[in-house]
Amino acid sequence: MFDRLELLSEHGCFGGVQRFYKHFSGEIGLPMRFAVFLPRQALAGEPVPLLTFLAGLTCTEETFTMKAGAQRAAAAHGLALLMPDTSPRGAGIVCEDHHWDFGVGAGFYLDATHAPWAGHWRMESYLLRELIPAVAAQFGLDGGRLGISGHSMGGHGALTLALRHPGRFASVSAFAPICAPSQCPWGHKAFTGYFGQDESVWGDHDASVLMARQEGAPYPGGLLIDQGLADKFLAEQLHPEAFEAACAAVGQPLTLRRHAGYDHGYYFIASVVDDHVAHHARALVPALSGG
Amino acid sequence: MFDRLELLSEHGCFGGVQRFYKHFSGEIGLPMRFAVFLPRQALAGEPVPLLTFLAGLTCTEETFTMKAGAQRAAAAHGLALLMPDTSPRGAGIVCEDHHWDFGVGAGFYLDATHAPWAGHWRMESYLLRELIPAVAAQFGLDGGRLGISGHSMGGHGALTLALRHPGRFASVSAFAPICAPSQCPWGHKAFTGYFGQDESVWGDHDASVLMARQEGAPYPGGLLIDQGLADKFLAEQLHPEAFEAACAAVGQPLTLRRHAGYDHGYYFIASVVDDHVAHHARALVPALSGG
Repeated sequence: MFDRLELLSEHGCFGGVQRFYKHFSGEIGLPMRFAVFLPRQALAGEPVPLLTFLAGLTCTEETFTMKAGAQRAAAAHGLALLMPDTSPRGAGIVCEDHHWDFGVGAGFYLDATHAPWAGHWRMESYLLRELIPAVAAQFGLDGGRLGISGHSMGGHGALTLALRHPGRFASVSAFAPICAPSQCPWGHKAFTGYFGQDESVWGDHDASVLMARQEGAPYPGGLLIDQGLADKFLAEQLHPEAFEAACAAVGQPLTLRRHAGYDHGYYFIASVVDDHVAHHARALVPALSGG
Repeated sequence: MFDRLELLSEHGCFGGVQRFYKHFSGEIGLPMRFAVFLPRQALAGEPVPLLTFLAGLTCTEETFTMKAGAQRAAAAHGLALLMPDTSPRGAGIVCEDHHWDFGVGAGFYLDATHAPWAGHWRMESYLLRELIPAVAAQFGLDGGRLGISGHSMGGHGALTLALRHPGRFASVSAFAPICAPSQCPWGHKAFTGYFGQDESVWGDHDASVLMARQEGAPYPGGLLIDQGLADKFLAEQLHPEAFEAACAAVGQPLTLRRHAGYDHGYYFIASVVDDHVAHHARALVPALSGG
């Protein structure tokens, strides 16, 4: 199921193991890296749930893995964690790494349709059709119990992938997500580059638009979003109020916590990550959900 | 008290604040950087205790701050954290940054006596006479309630500084420390470079030698050391058994935990850091110590 899977490193971590891998992705057409945390229950052969975390602009599979401190709570709840990279790398597209908010490190978790990106920039298909199923199978996890979360561009990824693939993820949360990319500079730049000038498709990848199109609450158990109020990107790029309004309009329960004094970085994420892992565990771990 | 103190960045973190500073050190004769975590109690004006963490070879003030996840427990216990840099930088000594285990990033927390290092490489005086007192005063902390910890080279620093300055630190712990630098390649290289060929002074900076010289237990409340058994540096560089024997000989209580499957890195540190913060809190926080 994995093509040329290579273990790059492994580290004992909270009674489980933190591993870094490289493999050849058929969807992307290039080698890709990812990190996976396996709690002790998974090492003992138990098919634990899998929580995927999508990182933000300029990050890699290592960022959340190293900085968020999520393994502690994941170990306590018996959840595996998957941290993918944020884009293809090494495609050889001219200027692909000249922008910190577009191209390399900025895949936006979508399948590009516009040249020259359409060939390799297929992060949505990579995650949904290749990486997540392969990780679940490779490590004996329960591929039917999936959660998704992310930060900033990765928060956009978590919300949009969950809404675009109904039933695939049982739990969703986000840290300072880009909530309305059609309305912000990061989103404009990415969507114009990856989809071209035809704005009619943008809504299909905009969490607030996708939520507004729902006919009922897709996640009746609720969504969790944390947002720092000292986040320098909040006013121009993130627009949580747009997603909040869309949720209210369709009756989607949303816990949107606004925190004074917290910025856009990982000291903020670390400060609230336990609540996110617990949010996912409530939906994914039977003993906690009462199921 | 600080000369040219400059706030480089600050981040909300677990109800407190994580800050990075630069200042001009009179002891070092160069600008130095450090990181400090202030829990909410300190921000409210309470004179909380201060735990200093010394990092290992190649690290900076950012490493433990970003990777260890110690702020969560420090916030819970009401402890401030100080993370100094690991050496002077920018002294202009020829080849000062040509070795990863000597010179820049490898100050070994001592005052060099050998040229060309003796001028600036004064980390012991910097920490004891300048940085720790200045941080306590600047942020309204209790300079009489100090703990010290560290990793690898920084574990060597924590153990030796505590033993060389009796009564200064109320609590001591270490992660995978260099326990007998006189007997290992890292220590030989550092001591030869910083002190010269006269090995008679080496014992004054060797934790196992210093402990063996004690006439009774300097820390009757006990010391805490964690060591991973998958640590690739264990056999050649660390020698915890030497320190363990020295403690036993003088009646110093030592909790030395050996952990199968853990390596020398920060996934190991993060896995046990809560126990270290709790160890220091028992000695430093009155409510916990029963004092």
